[in-house]
Parts: sequence; C-alpha cells; structure tokens
Amino acid sequence: MKRVGKQSYAFVEGPSIEAAAVVVGPKEGKGMWRDYFDRVTEDHYYGMESFEKAEQRMMGEAAEMTLERKGLTKERLDLFLGGDLLNQTLTTNITARSLAAPFIGLYGACSTFASALLLGSMLIDAGYVENCLCGSSSHYCTAERQFRMPVEYGGQPKPWAQWTVTAAGTALLGRGERSMPRISRLTIGKVVDLGTRDPSDMGSAMAPAAADTILAHFREHGLRPDEYDLVLSGDLGAFGTKMCRSLLREQGLELDARYNDCGVLIFQDDEEAANGGSGAGCSTAFTLGPILAQLQSGQLRKVLIVGTGALLSSLSTLQGESIPGIAHAVAMEGVKA
Amino acid sequence: MKRVGKQSYAFVEGPSIEAAAVVVGPKEGKGMWRDYFDRVTEDHYYGMESFEKAEQRMMGEAAEMTLERKGLTKERLDLFLGGDLLNQTLTTNITARSLAAPFIGLYGACSTFASALLLGSMLIDAGYVENCLCGSSSHYCTAERQFRMPVEYGGQPKPWAQWTVTAAGTALLGRGERSMPRISRLTIGKVVDLGTRDPSDMGSAMAPAAADTILAHFREHGLRPDEYDLVLSGDLGAFGTKMCRSLLREQGLELDARYNDCGVLIFQDDEEAANGGSGAGCSTAFTLGPILAQLQSGQLRKVLIVGTGALLSSLSTLQGESIPGIAHAVAMEGVKA
Repeated sequence: MKRVGKQSYAFVEGPSIEAAAVVVGPKEGKGMWRDYFDRVTEDHYYGMESFEKAEQRMMGEAAEMTLERKGLTKERLDLFLGGDLLNQTLTTNITARSLAAPFIGLYGACSTFASALLLGSMLIDAGYVENCLCGSSSHYCTAERQFRMPVEYGGQPKPWAQWTVTAAGTALLGRGERSMPRISRLTIGKVVDLGTRDPSDMGSAMAPAAADTILAHFREHGLRPDEYDLVLSGDLGAFGTKMCRSLLREQGLELDARYNDCGVLIFQDDEEAANGGSGAGCSTAFTLGPILAQLQSGQLRKVLIVGTGALLSSLSTLQGESIPGIAHAVAMEGVKA
Repeated sequence: MKRVGKQSYAFVEGPSIEAAAVVVGPKEGKGMWRDYFDRVTEDHYYGMESFEKAEQRMMGEAAEMTLERKGLTKERLDLFLGGDLLNQTLTTNITARSLAAPFIGLYGACSTFASALLLGSMLIDAGYVENCLCGSSSHYCTAERQFRMPVEYGGQPKPWAQWTVTAAGTALLGRGERSMPRISRLTIGKVVDLGTRDPSDMGSAMAPAAADTILAHFREHGLRPDEYDLVLSGDLGAFGTKMCRSLLREQGLELDARYNDCGVLIFQDDEEAANGGSGAGCSTAFTLGPILAQLQSGQLRKVLIVGTGALLSSLSTLQGESIPGIAHAVAMEGVKA
C-alpha cells in the first residue's frame, strides 16, 4: 500500500471482501432492495425480550452467516473490528463475546463500518492478520429510545428527521478471493464542525465532513470526477445530500448523478422516511447488500463509500455543544473493474 | 513485525513513545505519584461549566502538551486514535475536533488506551503513518453521573466499588526517538465473560480477561515468568488483582511481585479508595506517568501493560446481562533494556 497524501492510501492489490451478510428489519425488508438482504426480521423484537437483544441477535446472525459462507470457524477468525450506536457499543460487545476472537471496538457513529473496513484492510495489507471481520448495526427502536424517546411514547418525529435503519451487517476481509470485490483506496477523515446544533438534523452536521473527505480523496489520489460509477455518502438524507453536493460544487467537484447517499437510496420508495435513512446500519446494509451485489455482477465497476458520522451524544446536545462530523472513504472495485 | 501466535505480535524494532502528557484531577494530584503527572487541576470543574467540559479540557491540554514536547504542529499529526468512557466517546470527539487531524475513534472501556497503542504501533510499523497520537481519559464526576448517580446526590458507594480516576493522557508514537521507550510486543485480547453481573464489582468481571490475555502473551511469545520487571493490569482493583493472580497461578504462571495493577498502585496511599482506582484514565495516567518515567530512567527495563475493560453499559445491567471483559497487552522496553 502506498500513502498518496496526508489522509489517503492506495492499495497495489487490496484486500477482498470475501463474504458478507446483512440482516434487516421489517421496514427495510419491504422496500425495493429487499432481495439484496440475507435475512429480514418479522418484527422489531425478532423473538427477543427487548429491542436491544433483537439488535444483538441480528449482528450475531450476520457474523455467523458471514463466517459460514467462507467456511471459516470462529477459531480461525483473526480479528473482529466493529461498533454500533448504543452507549458503550453494547451490540458489538455482545457479538464479540459470542465470536471469542481477538476484538477491537470502534466508535465513529454512523461512520463506524467505514472505519472498520479502513483499519481492517490496512492490517491485512500489512500482513498482520489473514482475515478480519468488520461489522456494524443500528436499530430504529434502540436508537429512538437512547437518542430521542422510546417509540412506545408515540412521539412525532420532526419532518426533517431521518429514519434510523434497522440493520446489522458484517463483512469478512481477506486476501484469498480473487473473484470478490476488492478495496482499492482509502481516505481517513478529520472532524469537521461548522456549528450546527439541531440533533434532528444530522445530515447538515455531517455534510461538511463528507464533502471534506470526498474532496481530499479526489485531490490526494489525483482522480477525475468520472473515476467512480458512484460516490455514496453514508446517511446524509435528502437535505444533507443536497448540502454536500453544493459544497462539492463550490470547490469545483461536479459529480452529478455519480453522487448519491445510502440514506436517500435505502428508503427511496418509502414516503414515511421522507428525508431518508440514517444509523450505523444504513451504509453498512446498503454497501453489503445492493452495492456489493452490483460490484459482483459488473453492474457497478468502482464505488466510493463515504461513511459519515455525527459525533454527538444526548449530553453534548443538552450542554449546547455543536455537532462534530466525520467521514471516512473506502473505494471498492468490482471483479470487472 | 512478526506474528508469533493467534493473538500476538513481536516488533523487530518497535515504535517509540516520542512524547506524552498527563493531566490529573485534585485527588490524583495529592497522592504519592503527583510528581509524575504534568498538570493537576485544582478542582473537578477545572474552570469549566460542567464536569464533561472539564474532562474535555483535560484531554485537549494533554494532547497539546504532547505535541508541543515533540515540536509537532497539529497539521503534521498523521493520526489520532482514542476513546473514553462517556456515551458516544464525547470527550475524545471534542478533542479530535480541536486537533483536526485524521481520527479514528475507539471504544474498549478502560482498555481503550491499550487498544490505541496497539493499533497505532501496528500502523507505524507498517509505514502507513509517521506518527500517531493515542489518548484516553476518565473523570470521577462524569463517570459517576453516567454509570451510577450524580455526585451531587451524595450516594454511598459500595465498599467494593473502585474509584474512577480523573485523568487524561496522550502519547505520541513514532519512529524517530531512539532515546525513548519502545513498544516491543503486543497481544490482542478476546472477550471473556464468566457471568458476573454486579456493576460495582468490575474487577471480578475483568480479571478473567486479564488472566486470559497475560497467559496468551507469555505462551505465544514463549516467555519466562521473569521476562518483565512488571506486568501491570489496568484497573482490576484490590479484589480483581487477587483474582487475576489466582487465575494465573492455576495455569502455572507465578509472577509474584512482578505482577501488579495500575488501579491498586495509583491510590495505594489513599484510604478513601480502598479497592483502588478504575476508569480509562487510570491505566493511561499510570502508564504515561510513573511507568514511562521509570522506563526512561532505567529503574524499570521491561513492562507489560495489560489494559482491561468491562464492556457493560447501564442498559445491559438493567437487562440482566453479564459483564463481558477484555484485555489488551502492550509490552514496553526502556532505553536500557
């Protein structure tokens, strides 16, 4: 791997995504992308006694399915990297316990999955681990309870709020599968905070960070705007995506139809989530579902995934703090790229 | 770097700790180790309007001092890795915003600092970054408010509870300083959970994980019990340390006086904290304070730091979940080793 700039790295032959699995909630399983997901839960409890335990079951099952697909036992897993939105990354800790593999927990809000892919691909490229499982998740009801109010209260979300995606996904990185999509380039994000304070409008908080990382990626790698079939921010939603596009344009980067957002796409056909999806599971599920399949089929050749995170907490909002944003970029190339 | 076992790595010539700084609270600044810390806050507010903002100021100052000591501007910092105990790792996010360097957030409870050293030293050894700032913190009043009850309520801690250390520390890893202690070996921990459920007794929850990682470290590296002057678990406290020693003995590893615990040592002369200290700042401050100084002076030659984390949350306790433990080991060698 070659460092090509302050934040950016280019692989000579990057690690491949050897296997992946996504478990989604009922809403996500009804939409237009349902065939790309591996398992759909019948309801938000998924047979468990709490929403949190449902989310844990979802991530655990995604991990199991991923390892099974590669025929890898837990004992042969070299490293698990992951995190989620819950306080102290509860979902991931419980999954790590069931895997009993070397584990390092990450927290980058909805950018967590991208940061796992980033670190995992570096450690594999350096030859430190043979394989690495990367995972993340979110759950509508656990996130609402923790960040806003329990869904049982029946509160009205603000019209510009995004809808937290119920999904857990894991990907196994390795060097073995030449027939699977590879990670080709990385850009590590910096925190950007332009001072927004509305926790219902995380798209506006993250858009400047997304634009900053996308601009750094194209600049440091010396790429033309048409390098990627798709540049996909994590979960900026409809408003945030407009803002990001406008920030890119201001700096002379016109991506036009080549730029879109996982949050916008995942609920594209769902009027209830008018401003799109959010949550750590959003970009995880969309990347490992539709995008991975289309990279495998040749429908997409090169995609830049830009995981975006709003690094706020309920307490930081109460204390009047503005919302720090971050975004990490991971480029993937299909088999026919 | 060479992988010597499932979880363990040995450096040929490991990265050095080029600079470090520790800011501690008033209690820590009164004790026997006070001269090893760089700055002591006069009270728990540290001139700020909330305990959380005080913790943020402490980590921000530690980072600034560390960079200043090395004469490194923020712009030349390649990577910041860190995390803390607060929900969504608030303290670290705010520090990352002030640094504006590439940032990846970690969460491993009180093992976070060890996981930052571990990842940072791997990325430097691989040549991916020239330098990496690793940081962590905890604050008695922010941790009490979040995990137990606000200190203003005057609640009585259980006699076996540990005392959260108020401290923030950061270390700059690099390859340049031959005159500074180096990181020589690593062991990445797995989650171990023997089923304890008392959140006031985190030492018992973490001791099995600490023993598991220490045993893996000695076994995979093929070391004799007298390899290190000191094997130092993070924050098991008095009871947890006894348990860890007994678990090691059961498996035939007798470390005797060569084994101790940062939590036990940091409040050794403080009757108020009878079961010792805890918190992500505990092992961070003790490692970067007394241990680093004694590695520099030659008083210590080789030390194994075993950061220990209890991966619980308030919610997991309410839901009757047992406490997953984890521990990561980082070996350091002094200049005269």
